[in-house]
Amino acid sequence: MFEAVELGQKLDKQSFKKQERVLRTQLNELQRKLADASVSTLIIVAGVEGAGKGDVVNRLNKWLDTRGIQTHAFWDETDEELERPDYWRYWKRMPARGSISVMFCGWYGDPVVQHMRGEISDSELDEATRRINQTERMLCQDGMLIIKLWLHLSHKKHVKRAKKKLNSKTQVPALEGKLLDKEQYQSLLTTAERTLRNTDTGASPWCLVEGDDTRFRDMSVGLALQEAMERRLKQQVMADTHIELPEPVAAKGEHALTILDKVDLDASLSEDEYREKLKFYQARIHELSWKAFLAHRSTALVFEGWDASGKGGVIRRLISPVDARLYRVISVAAPTDEELAHHYLWRFWRQVPRSGYMTLYDRSWYGRVLVERVEGFASPDEWRSAYLQINHFEEQLTDHGIILQKFWLHISPEEQLERFRDREKTPWKMHKITDEDWRNRESWDDYKAAVNDMIAHTSTSNAPWHLIPSNSKLYARIKVLKTVCKAMEKALEH
Amino acid sequence: MFEAVELGQKLDKQSFKKQERVLRTQLNELQRKLADASVSTLIIVAGVEGAGKGDVVNRLNKWLDTRGIQTHAFWDETDEELERPDYWRYWKRMPARGSISVMFCGWYGDPVVQHMRGEISDSELDEATRRINQTERMLCQDGMLIIKLWLHLSHKKHVKRAKKKLNSKTQVPALEGKLLDKEQYQSLLTTAERTLRNTDTGASPWCLVEGDDTRFRDMSVGLALQEAMERRLKQQVMADTHIELPEPVAAKGEHALTILDKVDLDASLSEDEYREKLKFYQARIHELSWKAFLAHRSTALVFEGWDASGKGGVIRRLISPVDARLYRVISVAAPTDEELAHHYLWRFWRQVPRSGYMTLYDRSWYGRVLVERVEGFASPDEWRSAYLQINHFEEQLTDHGIILQKFWLHISPEEQLERFRDREKTPWKMHKITDEDWRNRESWDDYKAAVNDMIAHTSTSNAPWHLIPSNSKLYARIKVLKTVCKAMEKALEH
Repeated sequence: MFEAVELGQKLDKQSFKKQERVLRTQLNELQRKLADASVSTLIIVAGVEGAGKGDVVNRLNKWLDTRGIQTHAFWDETDEELERPDYWRYWKRMPARGSISVMFCGWYGDPVVQHMRGEISDSELDEATRRINQTERMLCQDGMLIIKLWLHLSHKKHVKRAKKKLNSKTQVPALEGKLLDKEQYQSLLTTAERTLRNTDTGASPWCLVEGDDTRFRDMSVGLALQEAMERRLKQQVMADTHIELPEPVAAKGEHALTILDKVDLDASLSEDEYREKLKFYQARIHELSWKAFLAHRSTALVFEGWDASGKGGVIRRLISPVDARLYRVISVAAPTDEELAHHYLWRFWRQVPRSGYMTLYDRSWYGRVLVERVEGFASPDEWRSAYLQINHFEEQLTDHGIILQKFWLHISPEEQLERFRDREKTPWKMHKITDEDWRNRESWDDYKAAVNDMIAHTSTSNAPWHLIPSNSKLYARIKVLKTVCKAMEKALEH
Repeated sequence: MFEAVELGQKLDKQSFKKQERVLRTQLNELQRKLADASVSTLIIVAGVEGAGKGDVVNRLNKWLDTRGIQTHAFWDETDEELERPDYWRYWKRMPARGSISVMFCGWYGDPVVQHMRGEISDSELDEATRRINQTERMLCQDGMLIIKLWLHLSHKKHVKRAKKKLNSKTQVPALEGKLLDKEQYQSLLTTAERTLRNTDTGASPWCLVEGDDTRFRDMSVGLALQEAMERRLKQQVMADTHIELPEPVAAKGEHALTILDKVDLDASLSEDEYREKLKFYQARIHELSWKAFLAHRSTALVFEGWDASGKGGVIRRLISPVDARLYRVISVAAPTDEELAHHYLWRFWRQVPRSGYMTLYDRSWYGRVLVERVEGFASPDEWRSAYLQINHFEEQLTDHGIILQKFWLHISPEEQLERFRDREKTPWKMHKITDEDWRNRESWDDYKAAVNDMIAHTSTSNAPWHLIPSNSKLYARIKVLKTVCKAMEKALEH
């Protein structure tokens, strides 16, 4: 595939200067228009050793308005990064709506280098590119413009550049590119070809750039950028005039049977049994939390459920035996404006815990397919594509070794009514009941359908949903504690 | 001082239960009221080994609504933290307005442990507490409620608890407290006394708690919290009815002579000289940036100046010879809502770079004493206290080894007018000129007075201001490049 860009194309100084003047003005204008349209732009600059990634990035910083652009390299990972799933460091640096991030190699860096060195197999490379595609597709769906540039170089030129660098007096040994012989170089190209082929998608295609002549290279990059930005702006106009399709009728209604109807709401526990078991499981949780800490295994527990189903009470019983240094409770409320300026999963990525800690989510990323779906804050397209995105997100957490368990606390509408009334009567519970709770109650059936879909789409063996009968608070608490113990014990066995 | 809390006070189970019921309701209510009043609360739980800091924190998490409370320990520092000034890790975890942070020991942890071990002298401990006082005063001025709890224990009880822990089966060797003999224990108390005495200020006083009896201890903590929260709410009412004092008349007017009038605006440079010097200094910047990276020295360059004074052009010339992986340009625009929910320096703390990198600020924290002062976004109290706060902030940067240089690009009003008109005529510069620029121009004299005060108050030997004559863009660029080179060379000599 790279023969196509080994053509020896050149650009003389004068033509470059002339073209640059025009291009720069246009790029500046396009940047402003994209900012006005709140489009986030991700530019990935990758390529062979010596093809001039750094020079290209510097050129872009010169051509574009530096105020809206951030450059990110991933070359000296911190331990904070190593203690989290791979993609955490990319999410941390995602461009906000209206701004541009330039990434050196981005998520392509690791798999390409590892495959070239023979550290990962072909199928592992394919697996890595599958994750890349999922991520890029998700970001594009969210409106991001992704521009991927691969800078190519003939082997002859590569040797010349590498030698020059080795002789330069400002050499920084650890960072400068190595000189690859013909065979090594071919192996890099083989890896690159497989990677590019796998990830050359319609939504985020690759742009191959011939890098032998620096002026031709930079101008090609500039023109590619211009084209991609212009195309994106045209799409924007189309998107703005796009007619929303009518929402398909979801399975709902009082008589539609869902998985929730199978939950045995009569399950209960006596006070005595409860006390005994609570003591037993809390002691185990205490031990397990330290064991997990020492084994650098994180635990993430997601709690969703009807209003007044007792999430807070369950969470309190879970954390009370755990050392306060080891856990964190994240209560998911309305997103901040910084969070709104990113893909909705961004705010959950930024809170992914370091290794060894317990994180308890009082509501979670599932808001997308629950409240946002039912209240219409997310369009059907958005919440429907969220299932795949969530599974993909959770897969990355569990692949990193995070123990992930999800709980739906289920109560009957009658039980809820009783609890609402009780709350209204108890002075220190009164604040817990709001008009919104009463409104949500009216949408019970819509929520029920949403919960059913959610469980059907996102209960995986790695990150299962547990439906907890919660008409009896005592029963629910013990059930959750027991489930958490079991999951942690199983995970820590290995 | 600790004799006062070695009284052997106890609380029986029944009384505790009874009091707890009342207290819990009240604490919950107070928490809600503070949240409604957008007060941020910082609770620091410190004390001797074995006094039960963890238990107290767990109790607070039980009593308060976990939704508005975060617990932070500082016991396993990451390299990201070590690569930044000490306080970065505390700023990262500052409570937002309306929420509560509980910190284990907080900024008291390091100095107390180091002094007790004899690693730092009395005067170094005093120096550390001075920094603590500055920080706490600043946060209190910003409306934060700081509650500091010191849990005390008799030596007898300390021995008993430590032994029990050593025998416990869930022992975690690296984390459990050590058993201190009488002499060591006395030395800890001596350190503690010095620390507490130094930092027991009116704005954030210490509360000493007798910890021998756990129920008495927890109830004391709860009551202390209740009292502090109630007092803070009363203050709030007073603050709301507070009558703003008239703003004192600042030295301004066209004829008031300021330091800016001494700038030789005729300084210029020929095209030829410029080219030659640019080449020379850019080559040096290139070398110095790598040298600084390898020496783990960061450089922070602050650019302020009149509209159209050429900040962007200077910054571009500075970064173009630097590897794109080594620098970051931060353009300071309007704060996000997350940033607004903290002290105004918070957003600059969160961007403090890791060791070895260059950060260029296109506008900076000085907005507080420039635009915010002139436009009235900050009250006179606020911008006047900002000088000290900024000096304190910058001192922490330079103490950490960050090379900090600040530039004011100075032009005459006539030159500005010419540049504005030029911008309006040039298609690719047009976007740079807005109505706001014209409006700011009308407040020239107010800005001039603000700049003068700023330089008088914040130009320190560690972090000097450089007044750059910028009527000639060529001259200004070379002058800045040269100054940066000099500062980096001097710093890297050592």
